[in-house]
Amino acid sequence: MNRFLTTTTVLCAACVLTAGTAIAADDLRSQAKEMFEPVPSMVPAVAGNAVTGERVELGRALFFDPRLSKSGLISCNTCHNLGMGGDDNLETSIGHGWQKGPRNAPTVLNAVFNEAQFWDGRAEDLKTQAKGPVQAGVEMASTPERVVTTLKSMPAYVEAFSVAFSGEPDPVTFDNMAKAIEAFEATLITPASRFDQWLEGNDAILDETEKTGLALFMDKGCVACHNGVNVGGHGYYPFGVVEQPGADILPPGDKGRFAVTKTATDDYVFRAGPLRNIELTAPYFHSGMVWDLEQAVAVMGSSQLGETLSDGDVAAITAFLKALTGEQPKVEYPILPVSTADTPRPEGM
Amino acid sequence: MNRFLTTTTVLCAACVLTAGTAIAADDLRSQAKEMFEPVPSMVPAVAGNAVTGERVELGRALFFDPRLSKSGLISCNTCHNLGMGGDDNLETSIGHGWQKGPRNAPTVLNAVFNEAQFWDGRAEDLKTQAKGPVQAGVEMASTPERVVTTLKSMPAYVEAFSVAFSGEPDPVTFDNMAKAIEAFEATLITPASRFDQWLEGNDAILDETEKTGLALFMDKGCVACHNGVNVGGHGYYPFGVVEQPGADILPPGDKGRFAVTKTATDDYVFRAGPLRNIELTAPYFHSGMVWDLEQAVAVMGSSQLGETLSDGDVAAITAFLKALTGEQPKVEYPILPVSTADTPRPEGM
Repeated sequence: MNRFLTTTTVLCAACVLTAGTAIAADDLRSQAKEMFEPVPSMVPAVAGNAVTGERVELGRALFFDPRLSKSGLISCNTCHNLGMGGDDNLETSIGHGWQKGPRNAPTVLNAVFNEAQFWDGRAEDLKTQAKGPVQAGVEMASTPERVVTTLKSMPAYVEAFSVAFSGEPDPVTFDNMAKAIEAFEATLITPASRFDQWLEGNDAILDETEKTGLALFMDKGCVACHNGVNVGGHGYYPFGVVEQPGADILPPGDKGRFAVTKTATDDYVFRAGPLRNIELTAPYFHSGMVWDLEQAVAVMGSSQLGETLSDGDVAAITAFLKALTGEQPKVEYPILPVSTADTPRPEGM
Repeated sequence: MNRFLTTTTVLCAACVLTAGTAIAADDLRSQAKEMFEPVPSMVPAVAGNAVTGERVELGRALFFDPRLSKSGLISCNTCHNLGMGGDDNLETSIGHGWQKGPRNAPTVLNAVFNEAQFWDGRAEDLKTQAKGPVQAGVEMASTPERVVTTLKSMPAYVEAFSVAFSGEPDPVTFDNMAKAIEAFEATLITPASRFDQWLEGNDAILDETEKTGLALFMDKGCVACHNGVNVGGHGYYPFGVVEQPGADILPPGDKGRFAVTKTATDDYVFRAGPLRNIELTAPYFHSGMVWDLEQAVAVMGSSQLGETLSDGDVAAITAFLKALTGEQPKVEYPILPVSTADTPRPEGM
């Protein structure tokens, strides 16, 4: 995907799609197959990180371990709750000291398929992402040193790192913590959504409204930004392309990717949200200010497409989006290594 | 168990036990079998609550659902973390608005075997207990009305309650929420500790230090309060029986069971802590002020038995206590019902 797709390109991508919604099933499917890919049922390979069973198991423990935070209260799962679509269903997350985070927590589900991580794409992959919240003062408020001291204080962790990163002279590192979490997160994929089953030929699994919604999603141009395996998660676009929404939805203080690139044209530019399991991850947008999926669709219509979608079109597109909910990951809750006298005590009450 | 056992009774119970530690293995076992019971491997029956699969499954979802809290952040598992011995390994819990709770969170593991719940025994069973933290302003800060509105807003919960409490005209109630959580918690038992295997005849599974510790635990009188299946969790006793520990460990503002009974003799009286999995649940005591298990044993020696235990005795008793760690429950992380437009929004950021 081209991460510097411009407004013009977006609109042109919409233009080249067939207009109208009366598309025969096979035509609709062949058109959709050019735009989307099913979520695979196999864990994907990850660049620079062998997704071994040992790393996944270690990463599962780390993902749920609140001792990665300074307070001992907050784990990755606190904000990326695997029972709630992989996020926290809050406008913005609650972090260390009950501080309010600046942006809505993105889902961890299928995040391995995103081009980059965070709303502004400032982390190139999940291993880089995993280091962010652990250190962020408003999130877990820890430090790499504290994390490593914590992990090295527990023999069961030391052993698990030694096995997962065998051959390394010093396996318990902040980088390897991040790699283990990335390996676990690579398993958090949601295959077999109804849309994917339909893509693969099960015609009856989508109803007419959902198919109409899919056709509209492609015809109206949504697909220009929201495509690929994650129906988004690739490319950076201004919010809005055509018309900026109000400050309630687009707080003026958060200029998005501008903070990463320092380029004026990246004012209010964000990564296109991945729409897999979108039904499970309200509230919406980087501000988390919209709770209703239909409203979010309507806002996208006006801000990104410059079009006031009819109620019927909004309802159909929303119905299609709800067909993107896949099988949620089955995860056994990990039994964590026990703290020792050397484990740093919780701080920050 | 006699909940009004007096100081005199405690000391006499110690007297009748055989003195010295040189006890033959069979004698030690037969003596221990009079005092302790293994944790069963079968889920126990619960008074007034049929522990059906449907209730357990529903209770599992509720136990992990942060939407039972006003903020949408805190679930039962936040403070009773099933990966960390069933508590939060904090001095006292962090609750709504980052408030500090008044007492150390007791473990939920094997709690079904306790005589009553909370440090002061103010809840007679787990279904009564479950209603407390949900409403406590410093914990989850919700209300029964908010909880019922939340649960009724999600069709999957309504269906699960209808099945779990079939035949009831209005199955989605605050009481039934508590009963479902109690049913799930009844499954959170930890059988097959090394001590239990030894009790059942596997002589070699405890080493000599651990057996010496067990003998000391009985001979010195610890067993007078810490006995039965949970090695505690029954009976109320002054802290200390003989000598009050300092205010760092026994904060003068918390008079324990006095707040429940309003009886002067219940000043600083607490339920004897259940010692199953005690190795996993530091820090210790209702104040959570002692992090080291050996120190906790020494404090108990001086405050409850009036005896300065030798370092060797403390080490042996601690070794025995670590043999009380059982098999931790395997729990699949639940996929929670999705919120709807009628679900109350998180409050209290």
